[in-house]
Amino acid sequence: MHALQHVLKAVSVNNPIPILTGVHIEATAEGLILTGSHTSMSIEARIRQDGTELTVLGKGSIVVPARYFYEIVRKLDDGIVKIDGTQSVVTAISTESSSIRLCGIEASAYPKATRSSDDSVTHRLLIDSSLLKSAIKQAATSVSTSESRPVLTGVCIAYQGGSELHLSATDGIRLATCTIPAVNRGRITEPAEFIVNGRSMLDMAGMLSEYGDSIELEASSSQVKFSTTDLHVRLAPIEGTFPSAQSIIPRNYYAEITLETARLLHALERATVLAGDRIVRLTTCIGRLGIVSRTAAIGDSKEDLGIEAFEGDDFSLSLNGKMLTDIVRCLECRYVKLRYTGDRSPIVLQPAEGDRESSALFLLTPVRTAVQVS
Amino acid sequence: MHALQHVLKAVSVNNPIPILTGVHIEATAEGLILTGSHTSMSIEARIRQDGTELTVLGKGSIVVPARYFYEIVRKLDDGIVKIDGTQSVVTAISTESSSIRLCGIEASAYPKATRSSDDSVTHRLLIDSSLLKSAIKQAATSVSTSESRPVLTGVCIAYQGGSELHLSATDGIRLATCTIPAVNRGRITEPAEFIVNGRSMLDMAGMLSEYGDSIELEASSSQVKFSTTDLHVRLAPIEGTFPSAQSIIPRNYYAEITLETARLLHALERATVLAGDRIVRLTTCIGRLGIVSRTAAIGDSKEDLGIEAFEGDDFSLSLNGKMLTDIVRCLECRYVKLRYTGDRSPIVLQPAEGDRESSALFLLTPVRTAVQVS
Repeated sequence: MHALQHVLKAVSVNNPIPILTGVHIEATAEGLILTGSHTSMSIEARIRQDGTELTVLGKGSIVVPARYFYEIVRKLDDGIVKIDGTQSVVTAISTESSSIRLCGIEASAYPKATRSSDDSVTHRLLIDSSLLKSAIKQAATSVSTSESRPVLTGVCIAYQGGSELHLSATDGIRLATCTIPAVNRGRITEPAEFIVNGRSMLDMAGMLSEYGDSIELEASSSQVKFSTTDLHVRLAPIEGTFPSAQSIIPRNYYAEITLETARLLHALERATVLAGDRIVRLTTCIGRLGIVSRTAAIGDSKEDLGIEAFEGDDFSLSLNGKMLTDIVRCLECRYVKLRYTGDRSPIVLQPAEGDRESSALFLLTPVRTAVQVS
Repeated sequence: MHALQHVLKAVSVNNPIPILTGVHIEATAEGLILTGSHTSMSIEARIRQDGTELTVLGKGSIVVPARYFYEIVRKLDDGIVKIDGTQSVVTAISTESSSIRLCGIEASAYPKATRSSDDSVTHRLLIDSSLLKSAIKQAATSVSTSESRPVLTGVCIAYQGGSELHLSATDGIRLATCTIPAVNRGRITEPAEFIVNGRSMLDMAGMLSEYGDSIELEASSSQVKFSTTDLHVRLAPIEGTFPSAQSIIPRNYYAEITLETARLLHALERATVLAGDRIVRLTTCIGRLGIVSRTAAIGDSKEDLGIEAFEGDDFSLSLNGKMLTDIVRCLECRYVKLRYTGDRSPIVLQPAEGDRESSALFLLTPVRTAVQVS
């Protein structure tokens, strides 16, 4: 059930290639390998043969219709189930009282996951699973949902030599960037960038915590692979050049305020209920931050927050409330720093604690409409 | 939050009458009364003034936009909130740090719930809440989803004098009927039938358990009202004549089998995954029940269940698997009796235990297509 749920993240019942609407099941001496794939992603989950929870009686492969197989497995009573793929293309699933036959598809037609030869792999890095998970969630806030520039639907994973990895994403209005430690295990230390689909990365992040503490990233020109002992996720990189985050981040600022993250989040969640065109207006005054929003003919709201630390001049600017809320929601720190860099220049958000393990930074471009709330 | 969630069951944001997209809030000396209404249903929930959780500072009424009000209340921090409706049509919601104004609507335009004068009430009955709740859930399995015969979208509540109430519903293919005890508190003991919307009854059933042990049904020609101390649900009866359940129930049968409800449910849930056109075929043989289903080009399934008690001849018939599963799922008994009354006559399902408090009975008409599973 568990392994199946994970590999199904890569299976679409609407895939125009019939065999890819199925799950590939392979029984080997080591155990069972379940694989789900679509054009740019493949997920492989392993269940080890241990003689009690899994016993392999015969080796072989079969592809079964994913949705039906999942629905049946989900509804089976607890206990031992026997899966029999010996009758060439029919898979029988049987327990004491149920006997189910599914038309399988010849496994030989299933696209083989490219097992990159060691020679083609350029980079091999070891990353902490939970740090990678939170970095992916942070980057995902700023991935573009429009397909007009494919490169912006991706998360850019940049290695600049050394022991750090930078994840970034941007849709032109907001940008997220995050640095996490990584141990180079490959022979090559040259800088490299890999752009992989943001949605797929987020799907993977959801599984990471269940498969051990560290994950290995293995990259070649044709594939980015994330592996733990029992989970292998292969992603096709997106071709193109990613906008340089460093050149966009404003260096100077007029004001910097520190706020309690949870309070800011709750205030923004309330403010966005009445944010017409999603716009909220932030205004600092006498050491406090006001957040106002308005929907014509319905009402308005005003939130008043204490500022923990203030530096610079008072400011006032309008932002997309939903985007700001998404960013604040993914922060895992108690305090957040917000920098005002001008009316037409993006605000900068950063966790305020000295976070040694991970450093996240977010940009959000203001909206040039003023909300008037009396 | 709690009271609001309940009254919102009667509020549709798409209601063409603008004032009905709102929630009516009335502050009285006794406490707060929240009301939500649509054309055929009104729900009134009360919060009592107790000086700690609720204090009424001034009496009055206002109508607020339901969706916005709900979203804001849901996102408020815990603690005391002050709701101020004194500025004629503006409602202010404020806590220490938030101040929210919603454009209210003059409450005088809100349709008053018809408070039936005592004279017009023909029947007044006291019913156990949890028995009513399970009877509604059982009847709801057989309510028609098609609007072509409005009377079949309802549940028929029949009182025949005495101390029993009969609930029934049918869509022409299946029928559910259930008898529960009721104490007559009115002056009239004449038989009567009230048909009320099945969907609204089911919504009410979801709230019942939170409002005390017993519920009062008060019926007049224009309204059926269910009341507890803090919840009042008013329903407009559906006009028409309900098909008589008693005349449809087959009196003779060729076979009767008793099955374990949970096992039958799980077997049916698996069988329906592969039930093409939703058809499952039931066959008895040597004291066991087989359930087979098939989807062309995908696969087939065969379930094999032990029969606890058998009487009569072996039989075989095809049924709508989803409908049968819905019926079996709402049974709260350990064993179920299934009677075969002929190939073109409905099967009869009944809880097998001697249930003194409630007696449910279900009919399901067979499908005249045979499923061939080799």
